Amino acid sequence: MTLEIPEVVINRLPIYARALSALAEEGESVVSSQTLGEKLDVTPAQIRKDLSYFGRFGKQGRGYNVNGLLRKLREILGLDQQWRVCVVGVGRLGHAIVEYGGFEPQGFQIVAAFDTDPGAVGRQVGNLSIRDARELESFLAENRVDIGVVAVPASAAQQVVDRLVAAGLRSILNYAPMPTHVPEGVAIRHIDPVLAMQSMTFYIKQRDGVHG
Amino acid sequence: MTLEIPEVVINRLPIYARALSALAEEGESVVSSQTLGEKLDVTPAQIRKDLSYFGRFGKQGRGYNVNGLLRKLREILGLDQQWRVCVVGVGRLGHAIVEYGGFEPQGFQIVAAFDTDPGAVGRQVGNLSIRDARELESFLAENRVDIGVVAVPASAAQQVVDRLVAAGLRSILNYAPMPTHVPEGVAIRHIDPVLAMQSMTFYIKQRDGVHG
Repeated sequence: MTLEIPEVVINRLPIYARALSALAEEGESVVSSQTLGEKLDVTPAQIRKDLSYFGRFGKQGRGYNVNGLLRKLREILGLDQQWRVCVVGVGRLGHAIVEYGGFEPQGFQIVAAFDTDPGAVGRQVGNLSIRDARELESFLAENRVDIGVVAVPASAAQQVVDRLVAAGLRSILNYAPMPTHVPEGVAIRHIDPVLAMQSMTFYIKQRDGVHG
Repeated sequence: MTLEIPEVVINRLPIYARALSALAEEGESVVSSQTLGEKLDVTPAQIRKDLSYFGRFGKQGRGYNVNGLLRKLREILGLDQQWRVCVVGVGRLGHAIVEYGGFEPQGFQIVAAFDTDPGAVGRQVGNLSIRDARELESFLAENRVDIGVVAVPASAAQQVVDRLVAAGLRSILNYAPMPTHVPEGVAIRHIDPVLAMQSMTFYIKQRDGVHG
């Protein structure tokens, strides 16, 4: 059943989980789809539809059990597990990723960082010593890694993605400003601030008319 | 009419524009929704439906005129215009954003960077001198800024968003690992690598079963 769930629905689940987690910490035991929707700028109908893919939660007019729904979402998403991450490309952005404090508390441990620059290899970043990118395949053959993060320049992104996929990785987070292709069965997320900005300029134009 | 276009559709338009731009550079004059879909991992039907919001492009069985469609999308999204951006929070991530080379060629010029840290204020980052965050409102009152980028710690994110909105900004890109709320009429995009990772672990679980 779960294979038919649209990707956009999956993408919203972590957001629901985070909001429920905040509600649980505030001591709330029940929340309506209305209240949850207001917190997240999502319509209540959307929330009910998204959650309906995973079974029946909450009762008509009674709202959702905060802890019960949170537990279920955490289970569905594997949020209670530990995930091992490698980062490829340790320029300024890669540095920021490796040293970002937000991954580890959420179960994402960065276990290796790779770069092609001989001047970077061997340098310390966070708790890691930067590895030579030529060792990528051998490292992945010998160590469990769940997610690969690509933080190389755009021109190198597809090649790095191809190498990660060839080495068996099936989940990739791409920070490079370039869409990349992966074969069926590989999950990829693309973090591209330019695309995010470009999707907002539409609204600026709507409001203000043309300028600049 | 355009006000009824779903946000997810708007979010896909810059991706279509980028793919068409690459095709134009390769000298392609016509592209089918099939080919475009294969390049972007989107179904042809989705592409046809998305574009139908903006008028009739292409002819049945003939494909889209690459340059014509690209021109139209660039016009819809305002991609040929210059947009002025300010960055709030110039830690390691903020630094990477200000020095990221990918914004300027796409028409996004970072015109100011703000921080609360007295040790950071006045320091040079890229071509900019970091400003005191207390000057945010006065700067925004005196200078045109179209988009605000929030790169502060999670605990400060909502407060910074509120200040940007109060100062009149209507488009915000939030890098802080925290969903924030904005009033109706303000466009916000949330870049959160943890959420992106959490939406992939679902697929790892599907494939591999539970581990860790």
